[in-house]
Amino acid sequence: MSDSDDADEAPDREEFGHDPVEHASVSAGMTVAELAAEYGKAGIGAADLHEAVAVTGEILDGEATTFLGLAGAMVPAGMRAVVADLIRDGHVDALVTTGATLTHDTIEAIGGKHHHGREDHPDLDDRAFDERLREEGVDRIYNVYLPQEHFAAFEEHLRAEVFDELGEEVVSIAAFTRELGRANAAVNDREGVGEDAGIAAAAFEHDVPVHVPAVQDSVLGLQAWLRSQVSGFSLDALADMSPLNDLAYEADSTAAIVVGGGVPKNYVLQTMLVTPGAYDYAVQLTMDPPQTGGLSGATLDEARSWGKLERDARSVSVYADATITLPLVVAAARDRAE
Amino acid sequence: MSDSDDADEAPDREEFGHDPVEHASVSAGMTVAELAAEYGKAGIGAADLHEAVAVTGEILDGEATTFLGLAGAMVPAGMRAVVADLIRDGHVDALVTTGATLTHDTIEAIGGKHHHGREDHPDLDDRAFDERLREEGVDRIYNVYLPQEHFAAFEEHLRAEVFDELGEEVVSIAAFTRELGRANAAVNDREGVGEDAGIAAAAFEHDVPVHVPAVQDSVLGLQAWLRSQVSGFSLDALADMSPLNDLAYEADSTAAIVVGGGVPKNYVLQTMLVTPGAYDYAVQLTMDPPQTGGLSGATLDEARSWGKLERDARSVSVYADATITLPLVVAAARDRAE
Amino acid sequence: MSDSDDADEAPDREEFGHDPVEHASVSAGMTVAELAAEYGKAGIGAADLHEAVAVTGEILDGEATTFLGLAGAMVPAGMRAVVADLIRDGHVDALVTTGATLTHDTIEAIGGKHHHGREDHPDLDDRAFDERLREEGVDRIYNVYLPQEHFAAFEEHLRAEVFDELGEEVVSIAAFTRELGRANAAVNDREGVGEDAGIAAAAFEHDVPVHVPAVQDSVLGLQAWLRSQVSGFSLDALADMSPLNDLAYEADSTAAIVVGGGVPKNYVLQTMLVTPGAYDYAVQLTMDPPQTGGLSGATLDEARSWGKLERDARSVSVYADATITLPLVVAAARDRAE
Amino acid sequence: MSDSDDADEAPDREEFGHDPVEHASVSAGMTVAELAAEYGKAGIGAADLHEAVAVTGEILDGEATTFLGLAGAMVPAGMRAVVADLIRDGHVDALVTTGATLTHDTIEAIGGKHHHGREDHPDLDDRAFDERLREEGVDRIYNVYLPQEHFAAFEEHLRAEVFDELGEEVVSIAAFTRELGRANAAVNDREGVGEDAGIAAAAFEHDVPVHVPAVQDSVLGLQAWLRSQVSGFSLDALADMSPLNDLAYEADSTAAIVVGGGVPKNYVLQTMLVTPGAYDYAVQLTMDPPQTGGLSGATLDEARSWGKLERDARSVSVYADATITLPLVVAAARDRAE
Repeated sequence: MSDSDDADEAPDREEFGHDPVEHASVSAGMTVAELAAEYGKAGIGAADLHEAVAVTGEILDGEATTFLGLAGAMVPAGMRAVVADLIRDGHVDALVTTGATLTHDTIEAIGGKHHHGREDHPDLDDRAFDERLREEGVDRIYNVYLPQEHFAAFEEHLRAEVFDELGEEVVSIAAFTRELGRANAAVNDREGVGEDAGIAAAAFEHDVPVHVPAVQDSVLGLQAWLRSQVSGFSLDALADMSPLNDLAYEADSTAAIVVGGGVPKNYVLQTMLVTPGAYDYAVQLTMDPPQTGGLSGATLDEARSWGKLERDARSVSVYADATITLPLVVAAARDRAE
Repeated sequence: MSDSDDADEAPDREEFGHDPVEHASVSAGMTVAELAAEYGKAGIGAADLHEAVAVTGEILDGEATTFLGLAGAMVPAGMRAVVADLIRDGHVDALVTTGATLTHDTIEAIGGKHHHGREDHPDLDDRAFDERLREEGVDRIYNVYLPQEHFAAFEEHLRAEVFDELGEEVVSIAAFTRELGRANAAVNDREGVGEDAGIAAAAFEHDVPVHVPAVQDSVLGLQAWLRSQVSGFSLDALADMSPLNDLAYEADSTAAIVVGGGVPKNYVLQTMLVTPGAYDYAVQLTMDPPQTGGLSGATLDEARSWGKLERDARSVSVYADATITLPLVVAAARDRAE
Repeated sequence: MSDSDDADEAPDREEFGHDPVEHASVSAGMTVAELAAEYGKAGIGAADLHEAVAVTGEILDGEATTFLGLAGAMVPAGMRAVVADLIRDGHVDALVTTGATLTHDTIEAIGGKHHHGREDHPDLDDRAFDERLREEGVDRIYNVYLPQEHFAAFEEHLRAEVFDELGEEVVSIAAFTRELGRANAAVNDREGVGEDAGIAAAAFEHDVPVHVPAVQDSVLGLQAWLRSQVSGFSLDALADMSPLNDLAYEADSTAAIVVGGGVPKNYVLQTMLVTPGAYDYAVQLTMDPPQTGGLSGATLDEARSWGKLERDARSVSVYADATITLPLVVAAARDRAE
Repeated sequence: MSDSDDADEAPDREEFGHDPVEHASVSAGMTVAELAAEYGKAGIGAADLHEAVAVTGEILDGEATTFLGLAGAMVPAGMRAVVADLIRDGHVDALVTTGATLTHDTIEAIGGKHHHGREDHPDLDDRAFDERLREEGVDRIYNVYLPQEHFAAFEEHLRAEVFDELGEEVVSIAAFTRELGRANAAVNDREGVGEDAGIAAAAFEHDVPVHVPAVQDSVLGLQAWLRSQVSGFSLDALADMSPLNDLAYEADSTAAIVVGGGVPKNYVLQTMLVTPGAYDYAVQLTMDPPQTGGLSGATLDEARSWGKLERDARSVSVYADATITLPLVVAAARDRAE
C-alpha cells in the first residue's frame, strides 16, 4: 500500500519535499496583506493568489512598463475605482479594454448608475423575468441592472461633448477614447454629477492611451457608427498600433496584468510579437477554463511557446472570479509595494 | 419524509409532471440523427443538445437570415470544413469571426498545416516544454502545434496576393476579408496546395460578408498594420457596420448561431440593437460559464432583457466543448433539414 | 515576427510536425461511428472524444476486468438504459455508484417517472419558483422534476420487497444493493410497471456487484437507517471491500470507465492501491474542472503519481457534459467493438 | 436604440433601480473586513462574497446549530487551521467530511508534511512527470506533493493508537473518527510532533461529532478494512445517523456551511429531509459549475424545492476557488461577529 520502504532520500527526491505546506490562519481584524501572507502558506488556488500578489507587488513597485488588459463586466460589477486608482497612481502605461467597459464607465461619469439585482439572484435565467425587464426598459448584466434611459444620456453626451470636438476626420481609436476621457472629466468636473470621473478620465489626465481593438462591438461603437453616417468622422482600426508597439519596443522591462480574457488579453500579449523582447512579468485573473482551448482561459505557459513571455518571466494565473480577486490582489500588492 | 399525502392533482401541479424523461438508448451503427433523437428523451445537457439540433434544423431548413458568430480556436481544432460547408450550402448570410480564425484558415488555404500535440497532453502547462517549443519555432494552441514558418508563408501570401490588390486606400474590414477570401480561393485553385480553400474563400465565392470587429487583435491585423506603415492602406473600423445592420434591418426573420463567446457572440447579438426587430432563433454552443458575469458565458435570456431576442424566440444554449457539439449539432440538423 | 528563418528540420523538431490536424466533415445521414472518426481528425476536446471512443472500444472488445464509476444525476438525466445495457451486454464487472443513482433507478423500476422541466430552463435559480415547487410537492434536479409521491412508493417497495428479505442482520452494502436489484427485477417483471427494470436489476441478473460507499448519503440510505431503528438490520461499511479488491487483484488486465467524479471515481481508482497492479485502461467523462484541485476534476495523470494507473495505461479525459458524451462514446465504441 | 422615452417611473420599475452599484476601493493597509465591505458595493461574485460574509457572520454570532460540510483537498491545500480553529471556537456542532480529509489531517497531526509543488505548476498534467513522481514515491494532489512514507507512519499510528482501543467490535463511523481524534491529540501532545493536532483532534476535544459517510473511499477506509480482515472490528454505516438527525431535529435554528460539493454537501443538506424543519442559513463555497446538473454545483435554490432550506432562509453560493474564499470569508465574518 506504500512505496515507503524503497523510497530513499536521493537528491532527486529532494525537490519534492523541501517546501512544506503550512496552514493559513485567520483572525478578526487582520489586514488584507496579512491574509495574502497566509495564502502563501497554502496550496492550490491560494498559492496562486499569493504569487499573484507577489508579482503584482513587484510590478507596482518597479519600473516595468505595464500593460493592463481589462475585459468582462468589470464596471457594472463595481471594479471601476480599483482600475481608475491604479491609473491615477501611475501604475498603468497602456490600457487595453472593451467598448462596453468605456460605455459603462462613461454612463457613470455623467451621473448614471448601475443597480444591484435582488439578493440571491431570485430570477436569473428566467425567460419571463427577462421579458419583464425588457418591458420595463431595464438591461440585465448577470446580477446587475441598467435602466435604458442611461443610454440616451450617453448618446447625448457623445453628441454634445465628444463628436463635435473630433470633427469630420478619420481618427485613431485611441484618439477617440482620449477625447472621451477628456469629455468625461470635463462634464464630471463641471456638473459634479458622478462620484468619480472614472477610468477614461483618469487615463486622459495621466496621459495613458486606451486601446479598444473591437470598439465597434459595443454601444460606444454603435454611436460612433451612427455619427459616421452623417459626417466625415470615422475610426482607423490600425492607426494606434504604432504607438502601442513602440511603447513595448522601447521599454526596458515590461509587465502584463490581464483581468478576464477576450480581446484585451490577447492584444496585450500579442504586442510582444513585433518586438524583440517579451513580458518580464505577467499576472492573469480569470475564471475562463483552459479546457476549452480558447485564448481566454489559456495558461500563460502557452504564451511562452509564442514568445510573448520571456523564458524566465515571473508569471501566474489565478482561476477564480475576478470581481473577488482583483480588489484582493491590488489591496495586498499595494501594501507590499509600499 | 414525503409530501405525497397532500399532493393532489390540481391544475398547477400538472405542469411539473406531464413530460416524462425517457432514457437514451444507443447501439452500434446508429446515425447521428438517431442519437440526437435519443438525447431528446434525456435531461440536463442532453436535452439542450437535442433542442439545439431542433432549432438549428429549423434554421437550416427555413428562410431566416442567419448570422454565424465564430470565436475560439475552431480552425486549429479542425472545425474548418464544418463551417466552410455551411457557407457553401447557403446556410450563412453573414459571418462574424476573429482575425485569428482567418489567419489559421488562410495558412491552411495556402498549404500550411496545424499538427496534433501528443496524445493525452503529456506536457501541457509545462513551462519547460513551452520553452522548448519556443526554441524549436513551434507555437502551441492548447493541444495543437503550429510551426512558425507558416507565418512567413502567410506574410508572403498577403504581400503578393492581397495587399497589392487593395492598393493605397482606406477600406472596410469586410472589403479586406473579401479580398483575402478571393486570394485564398485563387491560390488554392491555381496551385492545388491545400485540401480546401476554406472559410474565407467559401464566403467570397458565395458573397457572404466576413466581419472581424477586432481584426487588429491577430497576426492578420499585425500584417495589416505593417502594410499601413509603408503605404496609404488602412482599415476603417466602422465602414462595414452599415451593410451588416442593413442585412438585419431588411430581414423578415433572423437567426443567430453562436459558436464560442467573445466579440463574435456580442457583435452578432448587438446588431439587433439598431433594428426594430430581434432574433427569432438563437443557438449558442459554448463552454464559458455564466457565473463569471462576462458576456461570453451569458445566457440567451440575458440577451432578451436587452431586446436582442424576440420574446418568443426559440433559443437554447449548450454548455459543452464546441469542438464536440458543433459537428454533432450540424450533422443532426442537416439530417433534420433534409 | 517569425522564427522561421532559424527553424531547421532537426530531428527534435519532427515530433511537433508529423501529424497534421485534418478537418471534421459532417453530413446528413452519417453514423455516430463516422462522426467519431471525424473527431479523430480534429483537435482540443474533439480529439479527446475520439480517443475516448478508441479506448472504450478496446475495453468493450477485450477481456479487461472493467470497473464502472457512475456519479451525478445520470438516471434523472435519462442515462439509465445506456448503463443498464452495458451491464446486460457483459461489459461491466463491478459498478460503483451513489445511493441517489439507485434511488432514482428504483423509482423508475417500480413505475415512477422523472419529468422534463420547461424548455430553456425559464425558471432555474429562481427562489420563488423553487418555493412553489416545494408547495406543489415536486423536487427539482437541475432541469428535471420529480414528484415527491414517488418517494412514498419507493419506501413501500423497500418495506415490502427488500428489507424483509434481508432480515435482522448486519449485511454488506453490496448484499443490500443486490437484494434491491432482485426486488426491482421481480416487481418490474411481475407488474410490468416500468419500461425497464434498470441498472440495479441488470446488475443482479448478471451477477455484477454494485458498490455504494456513501450509501447513507441518499434517500435509499435514509430508508435503510429508518429500518435499522426498528430492527437488527444494518449495513457493514467495510464488508464488501474484500470482494472488490479481490476482483482487481485477480484480474489479468483492468479498465476504469469513470462517469462524473465524486466518490465513485475515487473508489474505482483507489481499488488499485491494495493490488500490485494498476489500471491498463482509463476513460473519464466529466465536466468538473481540474483547477479546483479536487479529486472530481483531477486529470488521470495525477492518478499515475499514486500508482493507480499503469505507466503505459491508455487513458483519456473528456471535459464536457457527460449526458452528451456518454451516449456518444458508448454508441461509437460499440460500433468499433463489433 | 433606447426605450427611455417610454420608460416611466411606475412602481414596478422601482425594484430595478433603487440600489446603485458603488465601486470597490482598495488601499494598502486595509483590513479584510474593510475589503469585504467594499465587495458589498460591487456586483457579480463580489456581491455574493459580501453576502457570504454577512451570513457567516450571523452564523458565528448566533445560536444556530451549525453543520459544516468539508470536501475537496482542503488539508493538503493548507486550510486545516482555519477549520480546526472554527471548531475550537465553538462555531461547529457537527462536521461532515471525507476520509481523505481525515487521512491528511492525521498525517500532519503525527508530524508528516505536505509540500508545495514548484511555482507556476511547471509540470502539471505531464504524464512523464507523474511517472517520475511515482518512481520517487511521491503522490501528487494538484500542485501539492505528499511523500508516500507518510502513509506508512499513518498506518502505524492507526495500529498502535486507534484500532487497539476500538477492539473487536462493530462501531459507528463517528465513534471511529472520535477515537482517531483522541489519538491524534494524544500523540501530538505527547511527542510534540506536529504544529497542531488538527481537525479531528479539535473535534474530539470539543465533542463535535465527525461524520464520514464514505469513509471506505480513502486510505483511512482501506486501513479500517485491512483491520477488519484480521479482527472482529468493523464499521456500521448507519449507526451514527441517529445522533446527527437528532441534532437537527432538536435544534431551534440551523445553519449549513458547505465548502466544496460531493458527499459532505449533500449529507449536510439531506439531514433536513427527516426533520420537520429546514436550514435557516446556508453558505456554499464551491467552484463546481451548476451546468453539470450534479449535486456538487447545484444552487441552494434547488435545495429549496426539496425542503432542505426554509422558504426565507438566508442563503448564498460563491462560485470561486474555496482555498481563496474560505479564509477570506472566515476572517471577515469573525470580524463581523465580534
